[in-house]
Amino acid sequence: MALDLLDRPAMAVATHTLPAPYLLFLGDTIEPGFAKTAFGLRDWAPERCLGEWSLPSATVSTGLPRLSPAQAAAQGARALVIGVANPGGIIPASWMPELLAAIEAGLDIVAGMHVRLASLAPLAEAAARHGRALIDLRTPPADLAVATGLKRTGRRLLTVGTDCALGKKYTALAIARGLAARGLDATFRASGQTGIMIAGQGIAIDAVIADFAAGAAELLSPAAAPDHLDVIEGQGSLFHPAYAAVSLALLHGSQPDGFIVCHQPGRAAVLGSPAFRVPPIAAVIAQTVMLGRLTNPAIRCVGISLNTAGMTAEDADRVIAETGAEHGLPAADPIRGGAAFDALLDACQA
Amino acid sequence: MALDLLDRPAMAVATHTLPAPYLLFLGDTIEPGFAKTAFGLRDWAPERCLGEWSLPSATVSTGLPRLSPAQAAAQGARALVIGVANPGGIIPASWMPELLAAIEAGLDIVAGMHVRLASLAPLAEAAARHGRALIDLRTPPADLAVATGLKRTGRRLLTVGTDCALGKKYTALAIARGLAARGLDATFRASGQTGIMIAGQGIAIDAVIADFAAGAAELLSPAAAPDHLDVIEGQGSLFHPAYAAVSLALLHGSQPDGFIVCHQPGRAAVLGSPAFRVPPIAAVIAQTVMLGRLTNPAIRCVGISLNTAGMTAEDADRVIAETGAEHGLPAADPIRGGAAFDALLDACQA
Repeated sequence: MALDLLDRPAMAVATHTLPAPYLLFLGDTIEPGFAKTAFGLRDWAPERCLGEWSLPSATVSTGLPRLSPAQAAAQGARALVIGVANPGGIIPASWMPELLAAIEAGLDIVAGMHVRLASLAPLAEAAARHGRALIDLRTPPADLAVATGLKRTGRRLLTVGTDCALGKKYTALAIARGLAARGLDATFRASGQTGIMIAGQGIAIDAVIADFAAGAAELLSPAAAPDHLDVIEGQGSLFHPAYAAVSLALLHGSQPDGFIVCHQPGRAAVLGSPAFRVPPIAAVIAQTVMLGRLTNPAIRCVGISLNTAGMTAEDADRVIAETGAEHGLPAADPIRGGAAFDALLDACQA
Repeated sequence: MALDLLDRPAMAVATHTLPAPYLLFLGDTIEPGFAKTAFGLRDWAPERCLGEWSLPSATVSTGLPRLSPAQAAAQGARALVIGVANPGGIIPASWMPELLAAIEAGLDIVAGMHVRLASLAPLAEAAARHGRALIDLRTPPADLAVATGLKRTGRRLLTVGTDCALGKKYTALAIARGLAARGLDATFRASGQTGIMIAGQGIAIDAVIADFAAGAAELLSPAAAPDHLDVIEGQGSLFHPAYAAVSLALLHGSQPDGFIVCHQPGRAAVLGSPAFRVPPIAAVIAQTVMLGRLTNPAIRCVGISLNTAGMTAEDADRVIAETGAEHGLPAADPIRGGAAFDALLDACQA
């Protein structure tokens, strides 16, 4: 469906395939935390990343070859991907000459920012003139249907969280890759912007009109062969006062057979809502089973993924072992891997 | 904020006040079921309805005075409201001359259909030329914020359902009116198109981007005086495979102190999802309390509203009494009123 993208200068992305390989654009970023998207793409989708480009004032680098838009296009790049976020989610005027140069060089532009690419007149005009696509991953897909709730063929695994932003995407990626490496027919299904850039397709569920959110989740993991496993990137948390509805739509539409609870040991308060406590893992398991039963009565918790970034290896091993024993489930930090992660993969495979 | 509407030819409606009084437009409707919006406006907002207008082929009437757009404008009407729905949610070409005549007569156009008024070029051009507003109640409000989950002052009551389309709007309207008649400071808060037309303001929660749905619900019932009661129109059902997320966003954002479960005795299958059974009232109470506790730990069920349309008075009285006794809660059909409804109002007042 990539051809379809080229025909439409400004469009929503549903399950279309993004044009690749990418030139990662880092803007004028000097704070590595703002370049998480670019680092994620480098780490999880190296085969989709040809190089990087940035303004002279930038100090952050992914270590990929530095290529101008024209050089990247000459080497086969098909899209410039904005791999950085700034606090306002805006595109500064200083980036504009580089984005226009990319369009002129024949690249599409892919972004997941709050501001819409097509709302910036110089970009919209240049894209129309050169027949390039401006792809906003946060633009809600058009023509979605409401969910049917009907069971689809194939198997599904969903990552859920005790909170936002603690490893649901990387857990799903690591499990999908780990199972594929074992020869299983497993696909990572992206439900957020960075995941979509990594996978090259997906739907940003949180950007969908509420009425269609569960329907979009059904579309995200379509009917498949009985042995096929979709590993679906979770969003938000059922205990988050702002995003629980997004999590519920994804749970109902995904109708998962199994789920992995993702948790960051030591995080006490809910991200962005400090008056709310991060719920215990057991509460998340119980609530997910209770709500998930609506569209899959056989739903069960398969294991626990712990984000132990910043811990010593000894502390991480200890908290992983303790958490697994406490809940009677395999627990691991997929980023650390090891025997614990192998056991988690065994459980996902079962 | 009505003035603001006039300045902007095509806009989203957040909590703006709709221009009134209305001229109800019935199109070419011959099927009374398709004119539910117009009948609802006549019954619940007579003070906002000046008259009706339709094509010569229409056979449905609200019984209101028949006025052309020009006559209505001369009598003070400020908007033509499309009070009918057709299966496709479209605006037939045959309606266009009447809508254009309304714009030329100085009326704004209000609609809650799937098709957007502003997407119809002749309407958009006429509205721009005459400085009139095209108000699509299903256009998601712009500039919403994500929910904070923080407790607001004032009291809140939410109607929830065992399914869609069984009386949540009319229950909330009847309770708000009933309490206001007793001298209580109570406001109906509309969360769907027809409710917004009746109240003259509100937010169509199901049309909001999922990420902002709970935030929109917070905006819908803002902080108020400690004694003030907002009676909030519910949407969907926590047990509906397509719409549960909308219901959860409204529950979390409304942070109700009390809720009324709305149910239609005898309805077995979920509307639009016949493979799903309508849940028992007790299950809806338990699930609403469990999920609602996140933003209001004191949430409790106040009573049960039964839609007994089509039953004999004897059957209705019997099922109302039995249901109330079974759950140990006041039960009533607000449309039938009577002592049972007085008891339900007593419980809401407590």
